Amino acid sequence: MPELRHDPIQRRWVIIATERAKRPCDFTGSVDETPNGNFCPFCEGNEHTTPPEVYAHRVNGSEPDKPGWTVRVVSNKFPALRIEGELDREGEGVFDKMNGIGAHEVVIETTDHNLHLPDQPLEHLERIVRAYQSRLKDLMKDPRFRYVLIFKNHGVTAGASLSHPHTQIIATPITPRTISMELNSARDHYVRKERCLFCDIIRQELKDGIRVISQNEDFVAICPYASRFPFEVFIAPLVHHHTFVNISEGQIKSLSQILKDVLTRLKVSLNDPPYNFVFHVAPNTKAKAKRPGYWTTLEYDWHWHIEIMPRLTRVAGFEWGTGFYINPVPPEDAARYLREALDQEENACAN
Amino acid sequence: MPELRHDPIQRRWVIIATERAKRPCDFTGSVDETPNGNFCPFCEGNEHTTPPEVYAHRVNGSEPDKPGWTVRVVSNKFPALRIEGELDREGEGVFDKMNGIGAHEVVIETTDHNLHLPDQPLEHLERIVRAYQSRLKDLMKDPRFRYVLIFKNHGVTAGASLSHPHTQIIATPITPRTISMELNSARDHYVRKERCLFCDIIRQELKDGIRVISQNEDFVAICPYASRFPFEVFIAPLVHHHTFVNISEGQIKSLSQILKDVLTRLKVSLNDPPYNFVFHVAPNTKAKAKRPGYWTTLEYDWHWHIEIMPRLTRVAGFEWGTGFYINPVPPEDAARYLREALDQEENACAN
Repeated sequence: MPELRHDPIQRRWVIIATERAKRPCDFTGSVDETPNGNFCPFCEGNEHTTPPEVYAHRVNGSEPDKPGWTVRVVSNKFPALRIEGELDREGEGVFDKMNGIGAHEVVIETTDHNLHLPDQPLEHLERIVRAYQSRLKDLMKDPRFRYVLIFKNHGVTAGASLSHPHTQIIATPITPRTISMELNSARDHYVRKERCLFCDIIRQELKDGIRVISQNEDFVAICPYASRFPFEVFIAPLVHHHTFVNISEGQIKSLSQILKDVLTRLKVSLNDPPYNFVFHVAPNTKAKAKRPGYWTTLEYDWHWHIEIMPRLTRVAGFEWGTGFYINPVPPEDAARYLREALDQEENACAN
Repeated sequence: MPELRHDPIQRRWVIIATERAKRPCDFTGSVDETPNGNFCPFCEGNEHTTPPEVYAHRVNGSEPDKPGWTVRVVSNKFPALRIEGELDREGEGVFDKMNGIGAHEVVIETTDHNLHLPDQPLEHLERIVRAYQSRLKDLMKDPRFRYVLIFKNHGVTAGASLSHPHTQIIATPITPRTISMELNSARDHYVRKERCLFCDIIRQELKDGIRVISQNEDFVAICPYASRFPFEVFIAPLVHHHTFVNISEGQIKSLSQILKDVLTRLKVSLNDPPYNFVFHVAPNTKAKAKRPGYWTTLEYDWHWHIEIMPRLTRVAGFEWGTGFYINPVPPEDAARYLREALDQEENACAN
């Protein structure tokens, strides 16, 4: 059983995957090897090699776990957390732990092994976004889960262990620290000003314009003022809205459009860089909470959003140790490059 | 002039190195290339190619910035922060910024291009540790600097851009977020219990024994209970002590010994892995402070230490986005492997 352990110094929970303990020898190869073989469990026809599907968009009335799907969600075969069991918290001297209850799913975005998000037709991207939403909605019915993470690792450098296009979903019995920090900042700002922090930022960014990459009817994409990484992107609803779970069909369309737009700009101007994206959704208000009633103001003070982080620099080790980032590309420059990426052929890197 | 920018959502300062703005094309090569040429500015004889030295251990009365040194500290030729100027804070709408004042130095550990820390003779490691201490002491005289970071990137994957053995020192006008978090946790624990949090942890670890790698007269090395990374190591003084700046000659010797011991164990059992280490020293009590008097209890509630993070897994992108870590190697197993690393030849990975 995996364990969640709490670090009392950093006040951070860590998943210790006790079941797949690795010997040092498992690490002595180069970490730069692409762990990609010939057989792909996510390709059509190989449905029997994955755990059963928990969601699928299917055509022609095809059967579950058989070919005929366009988007398919399955449990992760090697989950970081286990779905069965009750949450159990325990002290261990100065430390705290709980058993590693959670869900770990994979959204297989397409049957095509090589067709990644920016190259999908818009209507297919919408299907993928609907799959995210549906799984989020379903997982949030479980009161054991305080938070549901939707994230993507694209490229080996960004942590992808299989190259077939996929997104991961992890439901956790705690709120990840980064999200907690954001929830607290937003709450504090609201208490002081009775305004949403994110709305304030978005208003200022739209007025300044220099860090805006693109926008549509419902969403805006910007390079954040204090970007940690070169070409980091922040996507958020233009009008205050606290949760991705209940966005409308129209918003699903515009979200898919801006995701395709931004990922295409990154791909074109940075030569298909490795990247991660993470959805920052609202925490699960139906979960058994540490402070009951704490989330009652979410609707006013929280603004859901997406972070996209291209993995272009190597400075991460130092950053891991300190939380202190050095970014060699001012976000104003990054936004300008990305804005111009699709306009001018001559912007393409000549080589 | 580089800028420090504050993210009001994450409450995190970021260095935006505005002067060395990079175009997208600068990133389109593989990030896995070793950026190492034939000429090495850190090798003996090339002293004129670096900024003037600010510290050196020299033999035979040799002149500054000439051959004859054993350890040499110079300013970074491409500093992330600038040493000249006054601190200046300014608002920018909802955002905050200050000018990028700080120091960025390089400790060139040896004249030998290929002799890394674990293979240094003990007395040379002591010279290197003395260089760290001397620079820390000197930089902390400057009231503009709230914190001084001593850290090392070993190997390309860990962010080293030059392979000649070196350590970096960055003095900053803010306390990095990770350090602040630890200072606050330690302070809270002390307020509740009148005991040092780190002393409590060390006592428990020594009693349990399962996560201890090695110890000597003054220091202990353990794999932390909630390790984020496989084979992560924490080194701390056995007896409560809050600052590295004034450790004794005897402690310098035992620190060098345990550093050599642990780095040798990592090298032997993990095939010379890329790694980062970061010293978590006390903040600069002579700095102009946000809350004057806040550091008066440091002596009781803070316990300096070192974090060593081997870079063996690729999961970092997701972790960057969430602060949530999945570690596939339980620290008990990691500690056992490292404890046994030097004892048994048959532990060597057969391949």
